[in-house]
Amino acid sequence: MRNRILLMGFVVVGSAAADPLPSWKDGSSKQAIFSFVERVTKQNTPNFVSPAERIAVFDNDGTLWAEQPIYFQLAFAIDRVKTLAPKHPEWEDQEPFASLLKGDIKGALTGGKKAIAEIIMVTHAGMTTDEFAAIVRRWTATARHPKTGKLFTKMVYQPMLELLDYLRANGFKTFIVSGGGIEFMRPWTEEVYGIPPEQVVGSSIKTKYEVRDGKSVITRLPELNFIDDKEGKPVGINRHIGRRPIFACGNSDGDFQMLEWTTSGSGPRFGLIVHHDDAEREWAYDRDSHIGKLDRGLNEAPKRGWTLVSIKDDWNVVFPAAP
Amino acid sequence: MRNRILLMGFVVVGSAAADPLPSWKDGSSKQAIFSFVERVTKQNTPNFVSPAERIAVFDNDGTLWAEQPIYFQLAFAIDRVKTLAPKHPEWEDQEPFASLLKGDIKGALTGGKKAIAEIIMVTHAGMTTDEFAAIVRRWTATARHPKTGKLFTKMVYQPMLELLDYLRANGFKTFIVSGGGIEFMRPWTEEVYGIPPEQVVGSSIKTKYEVRDGKSVITRLPELNFIDDKEGKPVGINRHIGRRPIFACGNSDGDFQMLEWTTSGSGPRFGLIVHHDDAEREWAYDRDSHIGKLDRGLNEAPKRGWTLVSIKDDWNVVFPAAP
Repeated sequence: MRNRILLMGFVVVGSAAADPLPSWKDGSSKQAIFSFVERVTKQNTPNFVSPAERIAVFDNDGTLWAEQPIYFQLAFAIDRVKTLAPKHPEWEDQEPFASLLKGDIKGALTGGKKAIAEIIMVTHAGMTTDEFAAIVRRWTATARHPKTGKLFTKMVYQPMLELLDYLRANGFKTFIVSGGGIEFMRPWTEEVYGIPPEQVVGSSIKTKYEVRDGKSVITRLPELNFIDDKEGKPVGINRHIGRRPIFACGNSDGDFQMLEWTTSGSGPRFGLIVHHDDAEREWAYDRDSHIGKLDRGLNEAPKRGWTLVSIKDDWNVVFPAAP
Repeated sequence: MRNRILLMGFVVVGSAAADPLPSWKDGSSKQAIFSFVERVTKQNTPNFVSPAERIAVFDNDGTLWAEQPIYFQLAFAIDRVKTLAPKHPEWEDQEPFASLLKGDIKGALTGGKKAIAEIIMVTHAGMTTDEFAAIVRRWTATARHPKTGKLFTKMVYQPMLELLDYLRANGFKTFIVSGGGIEFMRPWTEEVYGIPPEQVVGSSIKTKYEVRDGKSVITRLPELNFIDDKEGKPVGINRHIGRRPIFACGNSDGDFQMLEWTTSGSGPRFGLIVHHDDAEREWAYDRDSHIGKLDRGLNEAPKRGWTLVSIKDDWNVVFPAAP
């Protein structure tokens, strides 16, 4: 018996000593995460939260993976326009496609929301859900980031992967709540983040069930269904999850309402904002950026008790090491 | 050591001998369930399905709980109209409320879909999601079924509770996919069925996030968002779950497309229809019923390989025994 007790003691000490967040520098951000998780998981204390209520939500673009120089889903759409172009000779003189095909992304986007909607519709609609998932899988398996040359799915933040694992090891259920397309994320989030399709919330277009030539299919229609951004994020959370999270991570003002909704509930709450301030290892942008603009969040994080994570100061490593 | 091995042997035999579906009579339906679950959980065989893909979907009204003499959510709405009536003197001469308040449900429903929509909107919208959940919780804790005098949440089918447990014990993730209101179900499905809010898919009205007097709330709007019935069920499944289930249970033609979508995928698939044919212990209705009409499903179940469950012949017990 004595040996066994010693052995068990060793195991406990051993696992307590292993740092579950090795890519996070020791400091107040890391400490805040640890102390929150310890607080809500300690049974028979006033702040204990039952596992069922341990819901953690994460924005994707700029929070779990990078979003510069353009949203990765836009890079996907542009590649898709190029693939489809031979079948659409009319695009040569038709904006936003004409500019896109010349590589002039800025020119293409001068058409604003209408231009983006047109690009999304021709690249994301008109096929079945299974066909779209296959298209996304092919793209994520081959397409490379214009600056780093890495696969886009390798442009994920190592410290956030560790945070996801750490929360799950402590009984949390982790969800993505992103302005990105729900069906653009689902084909790869399970493998990359350990987040299954049913725990992904995002923007969507309408779909339709039909039996076509004797085959059951769900078709993607060129019509917007839901925008999961800003005020839409709490709505999307309520619609898909049906409970208020206790832990929320974002990086831009598009996540403000998600953090507000999460942290204004009763009991212990945690809000985290990733601040992109590392031009050397990643990108530095906030108040004036057209992508991932972070202004109100920067102003209000301190008074709301949200943890502002500096990529420069809080992270040892940004991206996973090459295998 | 020998004692321990014997003890372990006993435990294994004991648990193998315990019938996980005691309320199901031995017969072809029960056997079909067992053999399907054994087939998909046996590792290193061609029909093995990884736990992540073991998605099971259940209709609610008439599949997990009863739906006679009127949908229970309609009973809730009627009770709610009565509660609200003192503040709405105008309802005395305004249909469908006037008839409802006189107890004339049939008269109220002669207004068809418009009448139902009006009843739903005044009873289900205009409050926050938290307020609505509290209203539902109060109702399920006190309201009684008009025929049996039981709480509505005791009008659930004991054999289906066992089936849910059995599937979960075998690594399945169980979801509700109902034409009923998603937020009408979520406050009680976890306690009653072991199905958490994030695994409930249903019909919904639109909602809006706002900060009201400094408080973050989600408000329920009097506008339809999604009808999770018929062709809507595969759409709802795709939207919320993002993978095609391998196991689906329903009871009416409103579930037809859900069963079709589920069972037309590749690999092993299971479709089950609960046939209400027991006027003595429950209700008997199918082709001509205005609630839970089952016509096409009855015709096509055999050729589609769906298991038709007879309440009369396949279930030992219908409702849970009183405690």
